[in-house]
Amino acid sequence: MTVETRPSGRACDQLRAVRLTRRYTRHAEGSVLIECGDTKVICTASIEEKVPGFLKGKGQGWLTAEYGMLPRSTHSRMDREAAKGKQSGRTQEIQRLIGRSLRAAFDLAAFGERTLHLDCDVIQADGGTRTASITGAMVAAHDAFAQLVAKGLIPAIPLKHFVAAISVGVYKGTPVLDLDYVEDSDCDTDMNVIMTDAGHFVEVQGTAEGAAFDRATMNRLLDLAEGGIRDLVKLQKQALELAE
Amino acid sequence: MTVETRPSGRACDQLRAVRLTRRYTRHAEGSVLIECGDTKVICTASIEEKVPGFLKGKGQGWLTAEYGMLPRSTHSRMDREAAKGKQSGRTQEIQRLIGRSLRAAFDLAAFGERTLHLDCDVIQADGGTRTASITGAMVAAHDAFAQLVAKGLIPAIPLKHFVAAISVGVYKGTPVLDLDYVEDSDCDTDMNVIMTDAGHFVEVQGTAEGAAFDRATMNRLLDLAEGGIRDLVKLQKQALELAE
Amino acid sequence: MTVETRPSGRACDQLRAVRLTRRYTRHAEGSVLIECGDTKVICTASIEEKVPGFLKGKGQGWLTAEYGMLPRSTHSRMDREAAKGKQSGRTQEIQRLIGRSLRAAFDLAAFGERTLHLDCDVIQADGGTRTASITGAMVAAHDAFAQLVAKGLIPAIPLKHFVAAISVGVYKGTPVLDLDYVEDSDCDTDMNVIMTDAGHFVEVQGTAEGAAFDRATMNRLLDLAEGGIRDLVKLQKQALELAE
Amino acid sequence: MTVETRPSGRACDQLRAVRLTRRYTRHAEGSVLIECGDTKVICTASIEEKVPGFLKGKGQGWLTAEYGMLPRSTHSRMDREAAKGKQSGRTQEIQRLIGRSLRAAFDLAAFGERTLHLDCDVIQADGGTRTASITGAMVAAHDAFAQLVAKGLIPAIPLKHFVAAISVGVYKGTPVLDLDYVEDSDCDTDMNVIMTDAGHFVEVQGTAEGAAFDRATMNRLLDLAEGGIRDLVKLQKQALELAE
Amino acid sequence: MTVETRPSGRACDQLRAVRLTRRYTRHAEGSVLIECGDTKVICTASIEEKVPGFLKGKGQGWLTAEYGMLPRSTHSRMDREAAKGKQSGRTQEIQRLIGRSLRAAFDLAAFGERTLHLDCDVIQADGGTRTASITGAMVAAHDAFAQLVAKGLIPAIPLKHFVAAISVGVYKGTPVLDLDYVEDSDCDTDMNVIMTDAGHFVEVQGTAEGAAFDRATMNRLLDLAEGGIRDLVKLQKQALELAE
Amino acid sequence: MTVETRPSGRACDQLRAVRLTRRYTRHAEGSVLIECGDTKVICTASIEEKVPGFLKGKGQGWLTAEYGMLPRSTHSRMDREAAKGKQSGRTQEIQRLIGRSLRAAFDLAAFGERTLHLDCDVIQADGGTRTASITGAMVAAHDAFAQLVAKGLIPAIPLKHFVAAISVGVYKGTPVLDLDYVEDSDCDTDMNVIMTDAGHFVEVQGTAEGAAFDRATMNRLLDLAEGGIRDLVKLQKQALELAE
Repeated sequence: MTVETRPSGRACDQLRAVRLTRRYTRHAEGSVLIECGDTKVICTASIEEKVPGFLKGKGQGWLTAEYGMLPRSTHSRMDREAAKGKQSGRTQEIQRLIGRSLRAAFDLAAFGERTLHLDCDVIQADGGTRTASITGAMVAAHDAFAQLVAKGLIPAIPLKHFVAAISVGVYKGTPVLDLDYVEDSDCDTDMNVIMTDAGHFVEVQGTAEGAAFDRATMNRLLDLAEGGIRDLVKLQKQALELAE
Repeated sequence: MTVETRPSGRACDQLRAVRLTRRYTRHAEGSVLIECGDTKVICTASIEEKVPGFLKGKGQGWLTAEYGMLPRSTHSRMDREAAKGKQSGRTQEIQRLIGRSLRAAFDLAAFGERTLHLDCDVIQADGGTRTASITGAMVAAHDAFAQLVAKGLIPAIPLKHFVAAISVGVYKGTPVLDLDYVEDSDCDTDMNVIMTDAGHFVEVQGTAEGAAFDRATMNRLLDLAEGGIRDLVKLQKQALELAE
Repeated sequence: MTVETRPSGRACDQLRAVRLTRRYTRHAEGSVLIECGDTKVICTASIEEKVPGFLKGKGQGWLTAEYGMLPRSTHSRMDREAAKGKQSGRTQEIQRLIGRSLRAAFDLAAFGERTLHLDCDVIQADGGTRTASITGAMVAAHDAFAQLVAKGLIPAIPLKHFVAAISVGVYKGTPVLDLDYVEDSDCDTDMNVIMTDAGHFVEVQGTAEGAAFDRATMNRLLDLAEGGIRDLVKLQKQALELAE
Repeated sequence: MTVETRPSGRACDQLRAVRLTRRYTRHAEGSVLIECGDTKVICTASIEEKVPGFLKGKGQGWLTAEYGMLPRSTHSRMDREAAKGKQSGRTQEIQRLIGRSLRAAFDLAAFGERTLHLDCDVIQADGGTRTASITGAMVAAHDAFAQLVAKGLIPAIPLKHFVAAISVGVYKGTPVLDLDYVEDSDCDTDMNVIMTDAGHFVEVQGTAEGAAFDRATMNRLLDLAEGGIRDLVKLQKQALELAE
Repeated sequence: MTVETRPSGRACDQLRAVRLTRRYTRHAEGSVLIECGDTKVICTASIEEKVPGFLKGKGQGWLTAEYGMLPRSTHSRMDREAAKGKQSGRTQEIQRLIGRSLRAAFDLAAFGERTLHLDCDVIQADGGTRTASITGAMVAAHDAFAQLVAKGLIPAIPLKHFVAAISVGVYKGTPVLDLDYVEDSDCDTDMNVIMTDAGHFVEVQGTAEGAAFDRATMNRLLDLAEGGIRDLVKLQKQALELAE
Repeated sequence: MTVETRPSGRACDQLRAVRLTRRYTRHAEGSVLIECGDTKVICTASIEEKVPGFLKGKGQGWLTAEYGMLPRSTHSRMDREAAKGKQSGRTQEIQRLIGRSLRAAFDLAAFGERTLHLDCDVIQADGGTRTASITGAMVAAHDAFAQLVAKGLIPAIPLKHFVAAISVGVYKGTPVLDLDYVEDSDCDTDMNVIMTDAGHFVEVQGTAEGAAFDRATMNRLLDLAEGGIRDLVKLQKQALELAE
């Protein structure tokens, strides 16, 4: 497949430009603006000095995530969920995914009876907001834990492994990496893959929007995702000024 | 792995006993009780002679699904969602999955401006309620469409292909098919796979509950699922008295 | 009045066929499927080892009930209450009635600080779902308390007296027992009567749907109900294998 | 039973003092303050020039009721239902009862495609608020319909018959009429009876709060109610300056 | 401006007739009916022997207010907020204003860990319901505190200063005091002013409904308000039989 | 008062640094980031080609506003309103204020049957978020209308006058302009003033948080606001590249 095939001119296995801006807002323990092409998400990590009821007295921590979109982050204005009085099924699905993915990255037993709240708020959407949220939240969470270390409250960042997320899909018959909105609206298959820096799977969610897809396509999509995740983890570590 | 390893004594690639009872209740156009071991779900398909607002006048149909659990379908009693005043994120995630999967089975353009409502209500839970719901709803939907054909309202069942669903997972280090509750509560990885009778993927949702899993495990899990789905589609067609 | 008058051919004072199936589902302490003609309700009784706040520390128990209908238990599909985000006035009225009626059957002071939750879920409706719920829940509650006795947690089943419930009404001018859906939709007066095995009233709820009714009709309806309840209590005790 | 038995000194068959004040507030088509002893309810009747969706185009009217209590109408302050975001089961039960009772009083087919809204708001509670609401709403509705007649919009008040409501109960072993709060809090049986001016039943709702009650008691309670209703209807007609 | 200009014939600086009826209902610690012309509000003050969570253990009290309108207090019937399941933005704005204003009147540190609940329920509306609520609630709160004093629970009424509230506005180009509904519906500017008996401002809320208004008008409106408040405080003290 | 008195070192009549960034996000017709010191609000203006029901067919437009805060825009994390299922009273009060203020700026009769939605989302809070929202929304709305003009849909921007908003207050006894969070948390009086470019009042909302304030203070506060608004309007016009 030649680059002409994708509306953006990207190669099949090419990520959009990714930018990670740390300390984007002042108050949160971790605050990251992640930009993946035109998709922009503010990811904040907040430490709360208590755990939910079901964990009280167990000596371990908790990590949870919430997701939202500004009403006009999208092409046409969406109703505000706070005004409607409930979060959509899509929103809940996404925030549950972010939470599960990030709980795989950190050792919940190693930061005391604290809760890490991750808030991922999309200020501009162009496809891939849930995967950008996970990739950005990883950096924000790392910063928040680093602050606990700096304050002497925990001995080390309770890191199990880095996680990052990317979408892959079949666009006009060809498997491609990192769908933008135009591709996403017109693709046959859409899969979100969350992996660790060791190349292991944390979560895979694939949906045939149009035709069902075969095993060979599945394999090609997983290959593409593996490559994309490798690059994203590199960018996360650079942003955090960590040796790879 | 010997059969001793699974609490139920099943082989790694062995489904639980599956029973599909059609015409389980009187009023619905399609009504199926699906039993997969001790998991029991009533799946009804109801035809409504109108479509949601966003489809009005487009000459096509719609298919949507809802899912619920009786409060004491589970080991300990759960709060009733109707009394709490909202459906949990898990419930919404599951009913969205059922809807997407069944929309892949039928041609929405081929049954007029009608809505097919699928209701999957778990009366007894022992793992795998969402996959049982999809497998059972396929049969209920087929019966409902058959009734439209019998009434002369549509020329043929708008079938694209059969779909069935099964879970696979890594239990005590070994990939196994069709997790029951005991296995599900103690597994490292849990994946739900929805496939067509042609062996193509409609949906894949895998989560590493414990350790992240590698590509080889992924491949073994997909193999197991493929075998399970093949058997389930056979059972669906037998229940419907269709040639395979 | 001859039997021809009722659509079902039943005599004026004749119950529909009643079937009580105990241990219908596995997990609940008491689980009964009650079938009254085509009306089918799953009644489960669950023991919880605590009481609501207003009873804490008072050394007594509590009993409460919830009621629901599967969306397609009825002739045309009803909206799911969990999806609408609230229980209808009718649902609340019915579950309050079930709770009051069963609290009259048991001695709340005699089973410790425990709550008995009764869940009555209609899987097929053909009139009389609230009375079937009460009659079935009586048996499920009895089973649940028997389990507490078997575990040595209470010395005896805290039974005050059996309760059962039945509807009576005026159908085409004639008082009849146990209205089915066809009769119920077309009756002038509908009364639900809940009585003890001693023939005393626990609750009476009568409504003139059409014309107001006179005292003589009231008396005839109460006579019919008394007979029906006597038969139902006999069936409850048989199902429980108790001497009458 | 001597009058000493009742805390208020009333005879067993004696109503509290009843006062009906018409045109209590300015804006409503009918507005009545009903006082039954210390129970005070504002009943307004509002005409709306349309019917609910299910009646559109059928050429008939509708009548519906809502009920509320001011937070401090009671001995200790109750939470405000508007602030809690939902009406209690008790409130819904009561307003459904008021609506059914008043629909029995008027001919819905005889006032065009209009809705009569009855609002019964308790400003001071001392037992019997639901029966006072019905008795007062009867007068408010009559006034509202009279206004439609006066404007020439309908030829006559669409009256089928007057309805009034009263409670009866067993207090310290003795059947009594018109329970006040002190009696109501300590009674064995509580029954609300709604009857027409012809002495026919519109609704009967009896509950054994303590011991179940026998048929003889039932009969005595209905006798008491009959007498009370006769007096109340007389008062309604006097208030409306109608010949009895 | 001559008196002819106002629909009511009042002078620009003339209040409507104000009547304060104490002990209007029986149960509340303070209960006042305030009538300002045709606007009628029941203001009750209820003492609760605890404080909200955020004040527990701090040794001080709390004061909070709620506001409601009977559905037919207005010209055309409004939906009941309890039935709609939420309070409007207007209602919340008003009850927050009442609470803030009355918290300025009393010393929260001087009545122990108690909450004073103010409920302002409009039974008839003709403009100025929020200001009438504040003026009436002041008297009800005073009565409730007096009862605590009478019971020996606090040494003195924790009064900082009296507060009263009035509206002013620009009606047909002329600044006027105490707008009634007719004026309010047709005014350019509407301002609510809450002041102490010392003539100091507690709250000012002015809105240009039509044209923006200049500084000179602002000054004239504040002058009018100051006069009105002086009269209202006099009436409050008379009603409470206090020396001015 | 010397500049030392304010924590920020600002003069009493000195605004924080204000920055208006137009076209901040891509999709909205108007999108402005307003920064007032450390307070940052994204204001978007979205055109919808229809009006709410109450305006249908009247040939005029509508303008409405919504307000939200990202959960960690504040010093400690707030609960997400969408997750709680309702907007707080404060949020509703603010968005109603923004809507009223901006409706004063534009001629609703001059842009056809369209709705302008203003969304003000605070990404970082340091006091004065509601006034920043209004000042920023003015610019976003202007841009959105300019786009309608550019598309030839309306002949001219339907501007009545510019509006801007600022807070003033009494901090440690001294009236100051434009309170930041530190000052706001510790001030006696807080007033929000919305004015036009002609120096007329659109809205004034003043609250004595501590001691009530006198008329002289009121006058000084209004003087300060007038100066601040003059500067803000200048900045709005510069941002829009309009002659002043």
